Amino acid sequence: MLDIGRIRADTPATHDKVFLASAGASLMPIPVVRAMHDYLDLEAQLGGYGAYESEQVRLASAYELAARLIGALPQEIAFMESATAAWQMAFYSMSLKKDDVVLTSEAEYGANFVALLQLRQRLGIEIQVVPSDATGTIDLDALRHMISPRVKLICLTWIPTNGGLVNPAAEVGKIARTHDVAYLLDACQALGQMPVDVQTLHCDMLTATGRKFLRGPRGTGFLYVRSGFIPQLEPHTIDHFSAPWVERDRYELRDGARRYETWESNYVARMGLVTAMDYALNIGMSAIQERCVVLAARLRSGLHVLPAATVCDLGRDLSAIVSYTIEGEPAEHVVERAAKAGITMGVTLPSGTRLDAERRRLPPMVRASPHYFNTEQEIDTLLDFLQDL
Amino acid sequence: MLDIGRIRADTPATHDKVFLASAGASLMPIPVVRAMHDYLDLEAQLGGYGAYESEQVRLASAYELAARLIGALPQEIAFMESATAAWQMAFYSMSLKKDDVVLTSEAEYGANFVALLQLRQRLGIEIQVVPSDATGTIDLDALRHMISPRVKLICLTWIPTNGGLVNPAAEVGKIARTHDVAYLLDACQALGQMPVDVQTLHCDMLTATGRKFLRGPRGTGFLYVRSGFIPQLEPHTIDHFSAPWVERDRYELRDGARRYETWESNYVARMGLVTAMDYALNIGMSAIQERCVVLAARLRSGLHVLPAATVCDLGRDLSAIVSYTIEGEPAEHVVERAAKAGITMGVTLPSGTRLDAERRRLPPMVRASPHYFNTEQEIDTLLDFLQDL
Repeated sequence: MLDIGRIRADTPATHDKVFLASAGASLMPIPVVRAMHDYLDLEAQLGGYGAYESEQVRLASAYELAARLIGALPQEIAFMESATAAWQMAFYSMSLKKDDVVLTSEAEYGANFVALLQLRQRLGIEIQVVPSDATGTIDLDALRHMISPRVKLICLTWIPTNGGLVNPAAEVGKIARTHDVAYLLDACQALGQMPVDVQTLHCDMLTATGRKFLRGPRGTGFLYVRSGFIPQLEPHTIDHFSAPWVERDRYELRDGARRYETWESNYVARMGLVTAMDYALNIGMSAIQERCVVLAARLRSGLHVLPAATVCDLGRDLSAIVSYTIEGEPAEHVVERAAKAGITMGVTLPSGTRLDAERRRLPPMVRASPHYFNTEQEIDTLLDFLQDL
Repeated sequence: MLDIGRIRADTPATHDKVFLASAGASLMPIPVVRAMHDYLDLEAQLGGYGAYESEQVRLASAYELAARLIGALPQEIAFMESATAAWQMAFYSMSLKKDDVVLTSEAEYGANFVALLQLRQRLGIEIQVVPSDATGTIDLDALRHMISPRVKLICLTWIPTNGGLVNPAAEVGKIARTHDVAYLLDACQALGQMPVDVQTLHCDMLTATGRKFLRGPRGTGFLYVRSGFIPQLEPHTIDHFSAPWVERDRYELRDGARRYETWESNYVARMGLVTAMDYALNIGMSAIQERCVVLAARLRSGLHVLPAATVCDLGRDLSAIVSYTIEGEPAEHVVERAAKAGITMGVTLPSGTRLDAERRRLPPMVRASPHYFNTEQEIDTLLDFLQDL
């Protein structure tokens, strides 16, 4: 059972605002913000290198914490500026060649899809989109039939940026593992919202961000690469940290996943991320997931009975990302008017998931993403506001 | 004439410490630190997206400020997590092919050189190192003779990480422009220490960091790409920001240098960088350079008369990076003992500039890098400390 009172006390912005945008960038709890303020002051006092030296044990614990969060080993984690940077490092390092096939899903995120398009143009890879079943979930049977020796990679967005869908990432992983196809899982919207375990997901690579449901700072993310997969994934870019210059004509790739990092990094943000991971682990990912499910279900039920609202859900298993439209009110207006009423939500655009958006003819939608620090009452406040619109 | 009293009041760490490590990560002045604290609080209050929206004008001024700092246009600037990320974006986007020749210099930074080695291995490019003249400066005549139709890129570290050398970056640029060879200039140690003007440098790409002489935060950097060069430099990685997904099967590269950025970024750090650029421009780059030259010259003179000290300078034009050894004392010990005496310096390793280090048989060296906020008295404090060693 979560101590909601305590959690909300740690999140002062909840005192005067209904914040329902954790799928964008969530609210950092006080300990995260304080850790960043303190570390920034330390940098001002000692310089950036002195501060790092004095806090290196705490900073290095980031690897341990991220590993615990996803069931990995610390040496399988590399920190990056963002989930995008992590995803790019994984994808572009795959050494794909002409006629290699990459499988992806209908609700794949735009950031990832354009990268696929780029390598199609540059290298002549082939992109094949695994169809969705009637519910909008990736169709596992179709996926099985599409596997061939030419398929070199499966890219899946576990929880798309809208639509609420939770794709069966573990089942996809089993198929990938069975056929020995590399599997890159975008867990950007999953981490911090639900338990994540790379052992049951059977993914070779997983990418995550700090700023969303994990409640960490912007400009943070990490890449997981399975130990056994690291030797075959040469980083597509290197520096003197990822690949120390050991002889005049030779570098040596660093052991483990840190070969995907660069030397320089933002340690104010890293300190915030460390604290955010600690914070989430202390609360417990199962408890967090339970609460997200309850609040999102309440929101969905409420929206379903609002005559003007259309929930644009996709899939069987639903996340705490609730996208919807209000008849006669463009999404931007709804979000703006809600902001004036003290309710923070976001707009999600068709270009974020263009394949799905075209298939379903989606307009821009309102995206409300409750998190465990929200209350039932706040959900009702949003519903009342929409009712009055 | 600089108001040193005011500047030191803005830099509280100078009150009880002699800080001589601006070539590593300098001390951020109070306005920079305050801007970051304030923005972080805003993020805690509004969420990461709300804070961005509310401060977007100030944040967007970063392009204008960086452009003013280097004599470029705002649309020629892309912000990155670090100078390394910027350099990688430029270098790996060059579409080099087998047998293309890349010219570089003897004092090239390790981070850059390993990337050259990687593409030699991956693509079969050829790396040719332009020799230095007797002073250790890149030999311009040799460079001229090495130009051939196979030469596709010149990479130069303007001010290497040690050795004090200021390479004749503008002269190299003239040669590159005359022969229509692409020119990538690493200005990591130059920006914030001296005036930088891409018009006279004739570079096609320039990379810089925030954390060194510019006195901005860690985890910041930018890439300049000349307008006319942008169309031929396709970003080697893209996301939905750099390349919006405009149709099912098509993306469109963003106009200008922002096609080299990613959507996500650390805006706490960006806000610090904006303030640091403002701060430097207000003081004036010529005044800053003058002061750096005076202090570095005082340090060099003092070291030259210390019997145990050997200054490991390179080149004719010298920067505020002073590397030296003390007979009988490993560099690490000197730096540690100095730290105990309240003097902050760094160690610079042979692997940072391996070609030069091997040629000159350099051991690890102490690196002292005064900046305009230092005083003559502080230089003398260091000299007294070394005298007593």
